[in-house]
Amino acid sequence: RISWISDIIVVVSPENVEKMKTIIEKYGHKRVTVVEGGTTRHRSIFNGLKVFAENEFSSHLLQKPEVVIIHDAVRPFVEEDIVSKVVMAAKEHGAAGAIRPLVSTVIASAADGCLDHSLERARYRASEMPQAFLFDIIYEAYQQCTDYDLDYGTECLHLALKYCKTNAKLVEGTADLWKVTYKRDLYAAESIIKDNLSQQVCLITNVKETLAQVGFLLPESLKSQIKVEAISISLSTNDSCLQNIISGQCYNFVCVNDKRWAIQETQELVDMLEKSNIPLLYPVVLILVHLDIPENNSFSIGMEDLTTIKKFARETKKKNILVYGLLMQYK
Amino acid sequence: RISWISDIIVVVSPENVEKMKTIIEKYGHKRVTVVEGGTTRHRSIFNGLKVFAENEFSSHLLQKPEVVIIHDAVRPFVEEDIVSKVVMAAKEHGAAGAIRPLVSTVIASAADGCLDHSLERARYRASEMPQAFLFDIIYEAYQQCTDYDLDYGTECLHLALKYCKTNAKLVEGTADLWKVTYKRDLYAAESIIKDNLSQQVCLITNVKETLAQVGFLLPESLKSQIKVEAISISLSTNDSCLQNIISGQCYNFVCVNDKRWAIQETQELVDMLEKSNIPLLYPVVLILVHLDIPENNSFSIGMEDLTTIKKFARETKKKNILVYGLLMQYK
Repeated sequence: RISWISDIIVVVSPENVEKMKTIIEKYGHKRVTVVEGGTTRHRSIFNGLKVFAENEFSSHLLQKPEVVIIHDAVRPFVEEDIVSKVVMAAKEHGAAGAIRPLVSTVIASAADGCLDHSLERARYRASEMPQAFLFDIIYEAYQQCTDYDLDYGTECLHLALKYCKTNAKLVEGTADLWKVTYKRDLYAAESIIKDNLSQQVCLITNVKETLAQVGFLLPESLKSQIKVEAISISLSTNDSCLQNIISGQCYNFVCVNDKRWAIQETQELVDMLEKSNIPLLYPVVLILVHLDIPENNSFSIGMEDLTTIKKFARETKKKNILVYGLLMQYK
Repeated sequence: RISWISDIIVVVSPENVEKMKTIIEKYGHKRVTVVEGGTTRHRSIFNGLKVFAENEFSSHLLQKPEVVIIHDAVRPFVEEDIVSKVVMAAKEHGAAGAIRPLVSTVIASAADGCLDHSLERARYRASEMPQAFLFDIIYEAYQQCTDYDLDYGTECLHLALKYCKTNAKLVEGTADLWKVTYKRDLYAAESIIKDNLSQQVCLITNVKETLAQVGFLLPESLKSQIKVEAISISLSTNDSCLQNIISGQCYNFVCVNDKRWAIQETQELVDMLEKSNIPLLYPVVLILVHLDIPENNSFSIGMEDLTTIKKFARETKKKNILVYGLLMQYK
């Protein structure tokens, strides 16, 4: 995602190495080396750093970087901006890390389980990730630190201070750096992803008059809530405008048609989406709206039509494209 | 919600007093007194405590309690168990508060924005709410504390220690005590509430043979995911079994019928739900399943039917009961 990062070392527990390699291959991630983790946080990080310095840990030694970023996989929403700030600060100060204000007061308890003292909240900060270091500093710190540090420590900035006399620069981070820790955090993460995916909808209508009218009214009513790209084309044209929208990471498409479901035209859109790799990471939603102008006061749905759309949707679902059919009575 | 709490003081900012009173009336909350907050956390809590001790702050002085619980409204998922534990500990020790392990390392920064030192994470805890105190202790502490405490302090346990030499008992809290602080926390809270509401579904079928069969198959396939209460009755009977399910805080109902939508029977269910006050706090979902056995290979929906169900649903929505119609072809 961030082009100026030259290598990514993913440290995972030995039993998950194969699984991680499968994931990397499936999603086509580049620049990634998988390394076995240790029994504690610090031992795992140390293993990751060794790839740049010790031949035995990797079949091909990666080029030693000037600055190394340490990040937790449980903070998936980190923005390029904060990564860049932390790296620049590390280049200048030798070490740097993101911080956040404390949400709760921190207290120390006595041996009897009672309050010993409380810390003044304003004077302390929560140390978060990402952190960045001059490679030589953090590697030196890990080489010098004790088994006690490796087994019980949690803070890389502390090691840089203790063993290399480097006072890390603290960089104010954003709220999205939080650690996905509890079940509620999974809920929050899911909602944030859904929010991002539903930022934009592409509305496709063909050029006939009634449809063009819908193609005008629908985006008007949607655009207060969501970014709408409305195009009026025949789906069978390999439209460059549509191609642009797809490559702009749009995950939602509404196709309005007066031909029942327009399966053939939709198939071409599905093919375009599939080629774009967009549905690889997140599902693409495709809503086929069929405008029905009933001749009398009731309308009928043929079983055959329903079977066709259901069968089509079942096929596209395998490609992570979710097709929904919507029948609208239009007066 | 917790019957052994005799009075609840809600402290809100002056501009929100009327709004809060409206909410309390709307949802029929009992035992609640609304008090104007101050400019800081401690000043607001002090205002709340004064209701039990100073005539001028309330039209009728509430009886002074032995133990007072202090809680944040931003921690809505607190369980009775932890409240009870904190109260019992306060009765014995004079003060008590819930704690949680730290999620991040806590650090102190120097004046230049660099790391001064980091705290050993295992030796510290996050101080959370609820906290409880012998009323005389916390009231004494607030009476004695300085303007600096009132303006800049955040920790009630600290006041009890500093001014009344009371070392609070620390009680291990659960993960659901977290503070709803950021947008992501609202997402998480919403999902937790939805999760709780969808724990149970009540399936209602009438006594005819085909329907009874569905009434058997549907709960079988649902019960791996959700608690299912299946009853087979005529909805027009004022069934005591159904009454029990409703009063057991069930928010989801599926009614299977072969009469189209069965509006009249459903109206009786809606009336029962309305009387129960269940839809007051959260929406009740009512899915009307109509089994349709098509005579030939297509089936038709009359506009009249659609209009009826739409109109019915629009009416019940005002009562916070969401009605959905589902037409199923049954072979």
